[in-house]
Amino acid sequence: MGFDKAKPLTVSHWLNTNSPISLEQLHGRVVLIEAFQMLCPGCVSHALPQAMRVRKSFRETDVMVIGLHSVFEHHAAQGAETALKAFLHEYRISFPVAIDAQPEDGGPPITMAAYGMRGTPTTLLIDRQGFVRKHSFGQVDDLVLGAEIMALMKEDTQPQASDRIEAGEKDAATVAAPCHRKRVSVDKTVRT
Amino acid sequence: MGFDKAKPLTVSHWLNTNSPISLEQLHGRVVLIEAFQMLCPGCVSHALPQAMRVRKSFRETDVMVIGLHSVFEHHAAQGAETALKAFLHEYRISFPVAIDAQPEDGGPPITMAAYGMRGTPTTLLIDRQGFVRKHSFGQVDDLVLGAEIMALMKEDTQPQASDRIEAGEKDAATVAAPCHRKRVSVDKTVRT
Amino acid sequence: MGFDKAKPLTVSHWLNTNSPISLEQLHGRVVLIEAFQMLCPGCVSHALPQAMRVRKSFRETDVMVIGLHSVFEHHAAQGAETALKAFLHEYRISFPVAIDAQPEDGGPPITMAAYGMRGTPTTLLIDRQGFVRKHSFGQVDDLVLGAEIMALMKEDTQPQASDRIEAGEKDAATVAAPCHRKRVSVDKTVRT
Amino acid sequence: MGFDKAKPLTVSHWLNTNSPISLEQLHGRVVLIEAFQMLCPGCVSHALPQAMRVRKSFRETDVMVIGLHSVFEHHAAQGAETALKAFLHEYRISFPVAIDAQPEDGGPPITMAAYGMRGTPTTLLIDRQGFVRKHSFGQVDDLVLGAEIMALMKEDTQPQASDRIEAGEKDAATVAAPCHRKRVSVDKTVRT
Repeated sequence: MGFDKAKPLTVSHWLNTNSPISLEQLHGRVVLIEAFQMLCPGCVSHALPQAMRVRKSFRETDVMVIGLHSVFEHHAAQGAETALKAFLHEYRISFPVAIDAQPEDGGPPITMAAYGMRGTPTTLLIDRQGFVRKHSFGQVDDLVLGAEIMALMKEDTQPQASDRIEAGEKDAATVAAPCHRKRVSVDKTVRT
Repeated sequence: MGFDKAKPLTVSHWLNTNSPISLEQLHGRVVLIEAFQMLCPGCVSHALPQAMRVRKSFRETDVMVIGLHSVFEHHAAQGAETALKAFLHEYRISFPVAIDAQPEDGGPPITMAAYGMRGTPTTLLIDRQGFVRKHSFGQVDDLVLGAEIMALMKEDTQPQASDRIEAGEKDAATVAAPCHRKRVSVDKTVRT
Repeated sequence: MGFDKAKPLTVSHWLNTNSPISLEQLHGRVVLIEAFQMLCPGCVSHALPQAMRVRKSFRETDVMVIGLHSVFEHHAAQGAETALKAFLHEYRISFPVAIDAQPEDGGPPITMAAYGMRGTPTTLLIDRQGFVRKHSFGQVDDLVLGAEIMALMKEDTQPQASDRIEAGEKDAATVAAPCHRKRVSVDKTVRT
Repeated sequence: MGFDKAKPLTVSHWLNTNSPISLEQLHGRVVLIEAFQMLCPGCVSHALPQAMRVRKSFRETDVMVIGLHSVFEHHAAQGAETALKAFLHEYRISFPVAIDAQPEDGGPPITMAAYGMRGTPTTLLIDRQGFVRKHSFGQVDDLVLGAEIMALMKEDTQPQASDRIEAGEKDAATVAAPCHRKRVSVDKTVRT
């Protein structure tokens, strides 16, 4: 086959939902997972608005959109649930958001590591049988993403190795950079 | 069925192609027809760049993109083939463009009238059996258009009445208005 | 005269500067103060990038750009210096930023209250004699702001009551709302 | 001084005005001249909308905005007055537009040649004494242009060599290329 079964989400808290969500219970639906950090410019300007467009353009019974807050830097700033809740409120993000669990050893968040994500934003598409069909770091075009989602919606059997559309376009005008996992912080402050 | 067979294109000239194109010869492929006018702001700023993105995002053996220059106003300004050629060159539009034939009675162009188009831009999607599956005047979202194209690509039988995705979103920030067929012209000029 | 002397900034900490800044020491320069909150969408998408453009388009000896972080909501999320530092780093904001001091009574930040600001973003322009010449809540056009800054740069005497250009344009496509001081929070969360 | 006196406009027709305009009669006002071609993508997407913003942001008694249609290529497509009138109508351009006179020898338009313009769009600023103070080919930032216009509005004496602000910023995301005077045309057409 060549496709990996989607690994379970390891979540410390869920926001914007009345009960935790497991990928198993979503079998039969296409799932878009948008891994982000609330202080990642490329997530704020591109990936999260795009995920909201997906939420509004498809029925939730066809396509489930889940945010995954995978904090791998600036933990003090964006690691608290209260910070994320304020962010989701201000940016009017209404789909369920999972807070990726932090490991005890200080490494990247557990779900992020399990999926081998390079940074944020990372867009995952999981098909109706639970296989990972798209794993993309950085900016994705709406036209291509819409086509990929529909391709998965139209599958009623096990996916074929050839069931993958080719994205032929890259957006020339990328305005906000994604966040890679290796980063160096600048720290300039003066107390008065 | 509820879907209409696509009517033939009535064309006075073709540009950007070595030979005329008939819809019959495109059976088996999805066809996107973008009806436009070179002086229609909504076509220039939105619909034609989007059609170029479709051209680049799908294989031409899967999806054929055709421009249809349906001039229903400002004939002296945009009715000449030489004007359209300059426009296509400057805007780097590389897909085949059909010049919609003008009727002798001075009404709207023949193909435009046959399809009952309200103005420009109008986006048509024709499925692999030659049925019109989308007919939209004005601005279309990339995410929805990508999904609709893929839905048609995935059909291998006669389309079902339910084979239509619902567009749930309208772009809030429409920056350029489409051109309706009824218009009044302003004419202010001074000779020196 | 009709113009108010700029009130002193009441600051708990400064970032992006080696020493605290007082408005007195800036006499002779035009000063742009951009009051913002790091989780205010209109600040992130419009006002702060605009302030960075001002920083890059004028000499610092002519125009001083200062950010003022005036947190009046979501204190737990955006009130900590460490959160603001991470934000400034990720968004590459390099001009000095003052953290508006919080009063003991839980009201709005002290500088924000002293200036009577309605929310964020608020853009202030202070002339070379230290008078407040512009106080604007929400989105400001680049063309108008550039003209206003230059008008103040060109003054070499006490300002006249007529020394104010009229902004004739409002941007039609405001994409991100400003944050008003009265807000209600939504709070949906589930622990797993 | 170092500044050139603005050369007269050599115009075959004026549009959007009841009478021809001479630069002499505009002494005392700042004049913005936007040289464009109606089929130049950079003019349509950037320079002309910017000129309209200038028109709306300043009083016409302070700043006069004039379009200059300097056709140096695709004469058959964009050389006719009727084509330009349709274009101005569709794009809602309301400031006066001068049609740059074509020379008998087939070279570039007379005003364009007199000013030594490299192509379109070219933005000229003429001060209140009639000197050319800015001559810029390609895209100009709103913030810088607003500042430059106001700098000229505030001059009440002969300009000094130092009366020029430095543009420190270039827009990273230029979406539409300007048109250089040397161009090669592509010509692909099929008759049916």
